[in-house]
Amino acid sequence: MIDRNRLLQTAARAARMGGEVLMRYFREGVVIRNKSESGGKTYDLVSDADLESEQTIAQFLRSRFPGHELLGEESLAGGATDAEHLWIIDPLDGTNNFAHRLPHFAVSIAYYHHGQPIVGVVYNPVREEMYTATQGGGAFLNGESVSVCDSQTLSQTLVGCGFYYDRGDMMRSTLAAIEEFFGHDIHGIRRFGTASLDLCQVGCGQFGGFFEYQLSPWDFAAGRLFVTEAGGQVTEGHGQPLPLKTTSLVASNSRLHDAMIEITKRHHP
Amino acid sequence: MIDRNRLLQTAARAARMGGEVLMRYFREGVVIRNKSESGGKTYDLVSDADLESEQTIAQFLRSRFPGHELLGEESLAGGATDAEHLWIIDPLDGTNNFAHRLPHFAVSIAYYHHGQPIVGVVYNPVREEMYTATQGGGAFLNGESVSVCDSQTLSQTLVGCGFYYDRGDMMRSTLAAIEEFFGHDIHGIRRFGTASLDLCQVGCGQFGGFFEYQLSPWDFAAGRLFVTEAGGQVTEGHGQPLPLKTTSLVASNSRLHDAMIEITKRHHP
Repeated sequence: MIDRNRLLQTAARAARMGGEVLMRYFREGVVIRNKSESGGKTYDLVSDADLESEQTIAQFLRSRFPGHELLGEESLAGGATDAEHLWIIDPLDGTNNFAHRLPHFAVSIAYYHHGQPIVGVVYNPVREEMYTATQGGGAFLNGESVSVCDSQTLSQTLVGCGFYYDRGDMMRSTLAAIEEFFGHDIHGIRRFGTASLDLCQVGCGQFGGFFEYQLSPWDFAAGRLFVTEAGGQVTEGHGQPLPLKTTSLVASNSRLHDAMIEITKRHHP
Repeated sequence: MIDRNRLLQTAARAARMGGEVLMRYFREGVVIRNKSESGGKTYDLVSDADLESEQTIAQFLRSRFPGHELLGEESLAGGATDAEHLWIIDPLDGTNNFAHRLPHFAVSIAYYHHGQPIVGVVYNPVREEMYTATQGGGAFLNGESVSVCDSQTLSQTLVGCGFYYDRGDMMRSTLAAIEEFFGHDIHGIRRFGTASLDLCQVGCGQFGGFFEYQLSPWDFAAGRLFVTEAGGQVTEGHGQPLPLKTTSLVASNSRLHDAMIEITKRHHP
């Protein structure tokens, strides 16, 4: 097993390098193009910023850990999720916000050992906030220990959610779940558009919980460790263990997990 | 008529003073209590920060314009909306975010002359972003001219929305409208939780549009001027002129207004 501190420092440095790329593009303005040329939906955006951030991160990780596999949203389709040494990278989470110049996006990098999360970092380059977690070592925001909120009922919390790119059953299931959350008299729903940061908001106690009916591994690979290391709980949408593949996801402060699953399960597409 | 520049400078300075109060509380931590002791819902929050911000702003405005009336969310119930000189103040828009330590809230201050918006400022103290508009003089972010986006169809945009504090028909109407917006293949829905800033995101071209089925005058008094001065359009939810009272509201980049109203009208509670 590799030294965790070295893994964490490497992940954080790579995330910062990716974030610098993003901020350069963000300040200069963004060129939008469709991700897939044929049949691509216009909301499925990608920019040069994604690709350059990914290349920068991948190059740095490969230079430090030449034998490790990489799995990422853009060009890094390679790494097997049960690899001995796997880095899971989202070089720009919140592409839609980024493309519309909303300053809420992140870089997400996680290291997995035989499919288990060991290190996760999520970096918000606009606010220069580095969320870090190591398995068994706790969760930190810019070096300060954080934890989930202690709300006992949904009625004391804000709940984050996401819609993925679906515009059919999944979207309607999400709206039905939101309606039921409102029925539990939550303080409000939030839709910020960056899943990795939504998970960090759960870990920091700002959200009581978060749910989305479809996420890819790079969206949650780092954030799910942040939540559990902050004292929270993360499962798929029926309450089963979270698989390291495209899946529904529910995160909470632990206490609220059963109440959340009861809702997300009922409306699960 | 008073010098507009003096009105604007006074509004901006007052907003900054209010923002400083908010940031002091935000850094120190927030004490939550229910706004109304009897029958108050727990999501209807207020903190000492609201009140101190309002007092600071009110005191400053009164010192500069002793004869003017004030209308605000907290203790300033007095000012008549058709007064010759009226300041409309939200000392903390986004109370729910603030209470849950989400760094997205604002101070909103507007000056109205016989019911017409002349000056509006919205200040985001976390990002130190000052959104300003004067009637006929354009919209500015930290002194730089801004304008709405030029999207021609909803399918090129993000749409912001809000749920007010309603948990009944209005909430369901909002969800039904969201579903229809998704049917128009929008890039996504955003729910950030601070209406005055949502309006500024429309004015800056980040959102193609924004809608909410209930807002109070202090929520939109400044932001609606920012949108129109940035080239956008603001009406109530059926497309009628926006009244200066509790109302539904639709804001857009102008081009998208008819398409938005078609949706918001159909589901209007």
